[in-house]
Amino acid sequence: MTAQAPITVGIETGGGTWRFPADRPLRLDSGASLAPLEVAYKTYGKLNAEKTNAVLVCHALTGDQHVASNHPMTGKPGWWSLFVGPGLPLDTDRYFVIGTNVIGGCMGSTGPASIDPATGEAYGLKFPVITIADMVRAQAMLIEALGIETLFAAVGGSMGGMQVLQWAADYPGKLFSAVCIAAAARHSAQNIAFDEVGRQAVMADPNWCGGAYLKAGVRPEKGLAVARMAAHVTYLSEAALQRKFGRELRHDGLSWGFDADFQVESYLRHQGTSFVDRFDANSYLYITRALDYFDLAAAHGGVLAAAFVPARKVKFCVLSFSSDWLYPTVESRDIVRALNGAGCRASFAEIQTDKGHDAFFLDEPVLDQTLRGFLAAQAQARGLA
Amino acid sequence: MTAQAPITVGIETGGGTWRFPADRPLRLDSGASLAPLEVAYKTYGKLNAEKTNAVLVCHALTGDQHVASNHPMTGKPGWWSLFVGPGLPLDTDRYFVIGTNVIGGCMGSTGPASIDPATGEAYGLKFPVITIADMVRAQAMLIEALGIETLFAAVGGSMGGMQVLQWAADYPGKLFSAVCIAAAARHSAQNIAFDEVGRQAVMADPNWCGGAYLKAGVRPEKGLAVARMAAHVTYLSEAALQRKFGRELRHDGLSWGFDADFQVESYLRHQGTSFVDRFDANSYLYITRALDYFDLAAAHGGVLAAAFVPARKVKFCVLSFSSDWLYPTVESRDIVRALNGAGCRASFAEIQTDKGHDAFFLDEPVLDQTLRGFLAAQAQARGLA
Repeated sequence: MTAQAPITVGIETGGGTWRFPADRPLRLDSGASLAPLEVAYKTYGKLNAEKTNAVLVCHALTGDQHVASNHPMTGKPGWWSLFVGPGLPLDTDRYFVIGTNVIGGCMGSTGPASIDPATGEAYGLKFPVITIADMVRAQAMLIEALGIETLFAAVGGSMGGMQVLQWAADYPGKLFSAVCIAAAARHSAQNIAFDEVGRQAVMADPNWCGGAYLKAGVRPEKGLAVARMAAHVTYLSEAALQRKFGRELRHDGLSWGFDADFQVESYLRHQGTSFVDRFDANSYLYITRALDYFDLAAAHGGVLAAAFVPARKVKFCVLSFSSDWLYPTVESRDIVRALNGAGCRASFAEIQTDKGHDAFFLDEPVLDQTLRGFLAAQAQARGLA
Repeated sequence: MTAQAPITVGIETGGGTWRFPADRPLRLDSGASLAPLEVAYKTYGKLNAEKTNAVLVCHALTGDQHVASNHPMTGKPGWWSLFVGPGLPLDTDRYFVIGTNVIGGCMGSTGPASIDPATGEAYGLKFPVITIADMVRAQAMLIEALGIETLFAAVGGSMGGMQVLQWAADYPGKLFSAVCIAAAARHSAQNIAFDEVGRQAVMADPNWCGGAYLKAGVRPEKGLAVARMAAHVTYLSEAALQRKFGRELRHDGLSWGFDADFQVESYLRHQGTSFVDRFDANSYLYITRALDYFDLAAAHGGVLAAAFVPARKVKFCVLSFSSDWLYPTVESRDIVRALNGAGCRASFAEIQTDKGHDAFFLDEPVLDQTLRGFLAAQAQARGLA
């Protein structure tokens, strides 16, 4: 087991790629296993002597370990820079914040673009289908490798929230508190439908090459861009789109053609084209598949509360956004009901905002205050200064 | 001007393609014109001697003139068979029902797959961008050609409802009553965004060939199927998808791959692949463009009520569905508010249903009763037996 030397860029204090030896494979829900396993991560802040201040930040579908440091490919601030840093809700003066790329991803953790040791070529579609539980199992291996027995908190939005729930179900003894934002305990038919549209868009691109595009030296950029565009609409509320763009035109008058006449078209096209520069198409397929397979109750006899019974000592905070129609509040209420049914302590808030699902990483003062308050109370309970 | 001889299939009583001579062009909002213009139509029931019982049914994005007779390509019943026929709300024993394919369409009316007289080849992207008002102008030419001075009613759902509103604004003197179902007076930013996703999906397909696929002897089937899948999700409510499909699997257990594991995936794929057999990809581009350009208020100084002032004698019925998130009830309320502001008589109902936008052509008893009641009352006012 080796880790790259810590590098300090801005508030980043460490990180690298943890390479587990071939004899420590990651066992997958499918029955397959992955070896050698690599898990990419970044850390912010310092682990205290008691190792009790570690916060794992779990990322969403297209996120990564670059939580609060500049993204190496886009140069943009990390996706949760508004919430992770000195004096911010995930206060790096107080907590040791760990961001880690999920397996199946494309930012350093083992994924479909990684080299398959059996062939010496990129896995492509030979990569095994993974689950949210598999992602969490890899994270638990990393946390153990870092010498951390118990996380002060696991925190995440969207798919990150699902990982948090899975942590509570699978590693309740390693978790002091858990924050699940804008998530659900299972993917609905509509969630699956939108994911399938995205997958079909990728697979419709002839440059996808049945998943072997890396070998062919091409990339299914157009298909992946369409997938991203379709998904992006679901991340915003209708009200937010109307407020930001309405029917505003890019130029005076209509073009009477198929160029981007409306600002919202131009915005969406940009979302699509910029995404393909930083994301792997097969990772998009595998991670959406993991999302669709996610159904925490199903693994516990169909009773969600049963998943949480072992987590009675974990303190939960469940948050939803009033205008999130991808993972609407009713899904968070179902989680809270199950937590209550299991006898867990759970705070819940529906945050009023028109920003839709993506509110979890946007400038949303009530989210800031709620996260800050919950974590501060838990820090006191945990005896963190 | 020639029309094909009426053919009688089931309740169909006539129809064909009305060919306007080259010296009777259709003037378009863009400044261009279309000539020679062809307008395909079907009729059901009989025009009375006074020619006062004609009902124009305006179709939605992917609909056509086959309102209540079998579709010639799919063999399936017409898209509004549940509502048009003897004893049905649009009672063909009483009314002369006219279905007509919009211009820009692909079922016989002049569209991008028609032959451009300037080149002798299919228009492709040389077809001019059209508007909802252009569609309605062509319909008015057809109605006049059929010898009908005044429609007893114009009725339509979704884009059909927009055409109804446009009829009221542009031809108020030719309209006795108007039924606008599940529509809006303009496309919202979210509507435009979803349409743009569909267009980009079509245009991402290399078989689209810059619009010249007919000449190339190919068809952008994969791109069009993705567009249809993305759109289809917006036609259903989350509740309907959950009720119909939930997380039901197609087979015992998961496939651990990218085949259609879930029933909802299989359903969506079928929607995509069956659609491309009956629809032209460029028509999809042009008609969605017409939808996005639609903004009835904009053509009247930004005041929607101003569009309806000349229509004070028209009796309106505006209907929405509680679970329609594509054209939500608030959009219908805006229409009703403008109608009231213009001094028009308007009935309004939000029909409670979980069927989403597509409820307008599904078995929806309250819609049946409401349409039946409104039209019967108007028929009495109009002096129809």
